Amino acid sequence: MRILILGGDGYLGWPTAMYFSKRGHEVHVIDNYLRRRAHAEQGTDSLTPIAASLPERAAAWKDVTGLDVGVTEDNICEYEVVEGLFRDHRPEAVIHYGEMPSAPYSHKSREHAVFTQYNNVVGTLNVLWAMQELAPDAHLVKLGTMGEYGTPNIDIEEGFLEITHHGRTDTLPFPKQPGSFYHLSKVHDSHNIAFTCRIWGLRATDLNQGVVYGVHTEETQLDERLLTRFDYDETFGTALNRFCLQAVIGHPLTVYGAGGQTRGYLNILDTLQCVELATLNPPGEGEYRVFNQFTEQFSVLQLAQQVQAAGKDWGLEVSVDHIDNPRVEKEEHYYNATHTKLLDLGLKPHLLSETLIESIFAAIEKYRDRAIPEHILPSTRWRRRERQAALD
Amino acid sequence: MRILILGGDGYLGWPTAMYFSKRGHEVHVIDNYLRRRAHAEQGTDSLTPIAASLPERAAAWKDVTGLDVGVTEDNICEYEVVEGLFRDHRPEAVIHYGEMPSAPYSHKSREHAVFTQYNNVVGTLNVLWAMQELAPDAHLVKLGTMGEYGTPNIDIEEGFLEITHHGRTDTLPFPKQPGSFYHLSKVHDSHNIAFTCRIWGLRATDLNQGVVYGVHTEETQLDERLLTRFDYDETFGTALNRFCLQAVIGHPLTVYGAGGQTRGYLNILDTLQCVELATLNPPGEGEYRVFNQFTEQFSVLQLAQQVQAAGKDWGLEVSVDHIDNPRVEKEEHYYNATHTKLLDLGLKPHLLSETLIESIFAAIEKYRDRAIPEHILPSTRWRRRERQAALD
Repeated sequence: MRILILGGDGYLGWPTAMYFSKRGHEVHVIDNYLRRRAHAEQGTDSLTPIAASLPERAAAWKDVTGLDVGVTEDNICEYEVVEGLFRDHRPEAVIHYGEMPSAPYSHKSREHAVFTQYNNVVGTLNVLWAMQELAPDAHLVKLGTMGEYGTPNIDIEEGFLEITHHGRTDTLPFPKQPGSFYHLSKVHDSHNIAFTCRIWGLRATDLNQGVVYGVHTEETQLDERLLTRFDYDETFGTALNRFCLQAVIGHPLTVYGAGGQTRGYLNILDTLQCVELATLNPPGEGEYRVFNQFTEQFSVLQLAQQVQAAGKDWGLEVSVDHIDNPRVEKEEHYYNATHTKLLDLGLKPHLLSETLIESIFAAIEKYRDRAIPEHILPSTRWRRRERQAALD
Repeated sequence: MRILILGGDGYLGWPTAMYFSKRGHEVHVIDNYLRRRAHAEQGTDSLTPIAASLPERAAAWKDVTGLDVGVTEDNICEYEVVEGLFRDHRPEAVIHYGEMPSAPYSHKSREHAVFTQYNNVVGTLNVLWAMQELAPDAHLVKLGTMGEYGTPNIDIEEGFLEITHHGRTDTLPFPKQPGSFYHLSKVHDSHNIAFTCRIWGLRATDLNQGVVYGVHTEETQLDERLLTRFDYDETFGTALNRFCLQAVIGHPLTVYGAGGQTRGYLNILDTLQCVELATLNPPGEGEYRVFNQFTEQFSVLQLAQQVQAAGKDWGLEVSVDHIDNPRVEKEEHYYNATHTKLLDLGLKPHLLSETLIESIFAAIEKYRDRAIPEHILPSTRWRRRERQAALD
């Protein structure tokens, strides 16, 4: 299958490119190094060393496996770029990771909020227009987020909910209560994508993904030049990966507030499986479908405790700190999200275990000297500045 | 009250400015003439003559009433502009009409779709940031649209819906199924605004308005220099106003498809009442509320038939044409939308009647020579171009 991967330089994008290439697909990736530049802007970096450019990574892949991955270093917010990609590569599937992925980044300033929404919404609109003009039968596999739903007091379904009201029934989009300017951008995308499926007959799968953890995939382990990035800083790091890094370098695990915030999580190996299952089983013409892409639910505190326990057995002294929550979110709440559609397609989950956490410790250990501890604690706050100042 | 009106040069913006000025409020308006430029781009124009600039309109208002309306000719997508307005005028209420308001415009091309979402989303984000930084207690009165809801098979509530699912209950945002890139931009706004009320404690009223009709308000009739615009062209015209114009100039009424498309409608006089009621009764800190702002529901065909009947009595020969629907929408559907919150605040509706339609005829008659009939029929289509070409 001819597959175009948007955001192919990222934590998930690069492993996805190798994964599909290895399985015989014709893969072309595009990235404009937005994430690398955002790191440079803040003096942070991936724990794993990612010095090579995308063409250099593709050359290493060729060197190790003999397989080709095509590369474009450019910006999907420029329509000519997207149009050129579609004309040149005639994709049958478009896997879209090409967005600014950070909630804290989107809260750093007005400029960051506006940039995040502009970048994500306009890039996705460009992809949708290119599909209708040049690849109307292609399948868009779009990375959304479980964060689109927020934390409603009812079970979260996969994208849609059958609602009975005053004796009448309809199946409607599940109400969205996103928790950051970034998460809002994904909600905007979801509405735009669903609409273009309706009016243009496009086909799309919106993968509402949970929090991903893990350092390695089968392909990243083939050669050090094939590593994917590993972020643990306040802007791009996420709960479990950050906790593992903290445990290894002897930093207290930083639980935001009470720690009852519950979310869906999955292993990076399962992201690859899920994206493959979605891609190989496309929806029908005009169909917009949503898969909740995660394998297990945990509260932040549960994760911290699991990392603490695994650390103890591994010989680490791990403490847990409850720090002021920089976000505005419920710290104790009901959470139960359906996630059966990918299981029905054949997903075999890699569940979290102490052994798995220890394998993450081991992978981190190798690069521990690259850690920059002063960029772990959150400095970006959701609350209003003036009010924040008054409270401090 | 110090009131800032965004989009103060528009069909509703200018009458709103005069209305509040007349009632003793301190009014400042901003507009960048986006609508006028969009008309120039397409060779169309308001039926009523609006040649004067906004400062000239304000000067005429001063001349006729002795009252001041402040004017800024600039773009709210530039943050420095919004910041300057908030610093200089310290608004207590911000009435936000300042968006690209046309569904067909947003479907003319990729550029038009992207521009509409960029312009509306970024302008509103700028307003929200300026509020949190400079006017956290001000009240945002935002013009949304009933089109955000689409046409679900259940009753439409005012912004929120109590949902019971698997034995648990929550009150959640009403699911949105907007029908154009423009309507999508309003849904994006609604999500952004609700979020900033939550995290920053802002207060906002989202007026999900129906289709507005009418030529005059009390203030526009004081002097010909105080007229508001009246659009009937395919891009900016809306059902009832366009039908009235068609009846007067002897053009068949153009019903899109079967004509069962049912929507909420209201008189421009009631828009002013509603906006005043919302403004004078602000929500509490952190509250995001939604009012469905319309007074009656009609199908497009019902409206055409009412205009036909009124025309007959007025001595006009009026025919009704069913033309190919340029949009993708249900032409027969259930529609029942709640609209009690503004009535509860004291709204006294001006309902549609034959007399009222005849008064619109009379107002149009005066400017009938300015009508450009060749810009009435829809040329912008929602469907995919290639498929459209194949069908033609």
